[in-house]
Amino acid sequence: MNHFLTKQRAILKVYLISLIERKKMYGLQYLNELRETFKPYGYVPKHSEIYKALHELTSEGVVYRTRKLRSEDKEGFQEIIYYQFTEKGYEKGQLYKRQVKTDLERSRDIIEKVLKDNY
Amino acid sequence: MNHFLTKQRAILKVYLISLIERKKMYGLQYLNELRETFKPYGYVPKHSEIYKALHELTSEGVVYRTRKLRSEDKEGFQEIIYYQFTEKGYEKGQLYKRQVKTDLERSRDIIEKVLKDNY
Repeated sequence: MNHFLTKQRAILKVYLISLIERKKMYGLQYLNELRETFKPYGYVPKHSEIYKALHELTSEGVVYRTRKLRSEDKEGFQEIIYYQFTEKGYEKGQLYKRQVKTDLERSRDIIEKVLKDNY
Repeated sequence: MNHFLTKQRAILKVYLISLIERKKMYGLQYLNELRETFKPYGYVPKHSEIYKALHELTSEGVVYRTRKLRSEDKEGFQEIIYYQFTEKGYEKGQLYKRQVKTDLERSRDIIEKVLKDNY
C-alpha cells in the first residue's frame, strides 16, 4: 500500500453499501442521498463517480443489478434499476467497510499530524 | 471548489514551506525529512511528487532556487540546489498555509462524518 488519504471512490462505496443495508435499492436515490450528505462540506459527488463506485461493487460480487419496468401514465414504461446484495454480498460489504474504516482512521491520524506539525 | 479530501500536493507544499521557515533549504533534505514524517502512516512520498510541489512553490513566487557548487574531493564539483523565500515569499507561504488549514479541518470533518454515518 502506498497511498495518501482515503480515496473518494472508497468512501462512496462504503456509503452505497450502507444505503443498500438500509434497503435503499433504487439507483437514482443514491445521487440525491449522497449530495445531501456532503452538502455542508462543499463537495458535490458526480453522477459518473457514483456510477463507477456501483460498477465496482457489482464486479466485485457485492451487489447485483436488476431492472424493472414501471408503468408511467399513458407514455409507456420506464425502466428502473435496483441494486441488492448478492448471496455473499452482505458479508463482503462488511469486510470492505472494515478495511476502509482502518484507512479512514489512518487518514484522520495523518491530518492530525499535519495540523500539529505545521500550525 | 469541488474537491474531496485535501490533496497530497497541498500537504507536501505546507511541509516544504515549514521546512524553509526552519532554514532547511537544501533540496535533498526534503525527501528524507518527509519520508521520515510519514513513515508511521504507510505513505512514502515520491521524489517526483516533492519535486512537483517545489516547482509549484517556485512558479507561484513563494520560493526561488539557487545553485551552488560544492567542491568534492578530487572528483571536481557537485551542484547543490537550495530553496529560499522570495521577498514576499514568507507572507505568501503563510497565506497558503492558512488556506490549506481550513481545507484540512474540512477534510477531518468529512472523515468524522463518514465514520459516524457508516460504523
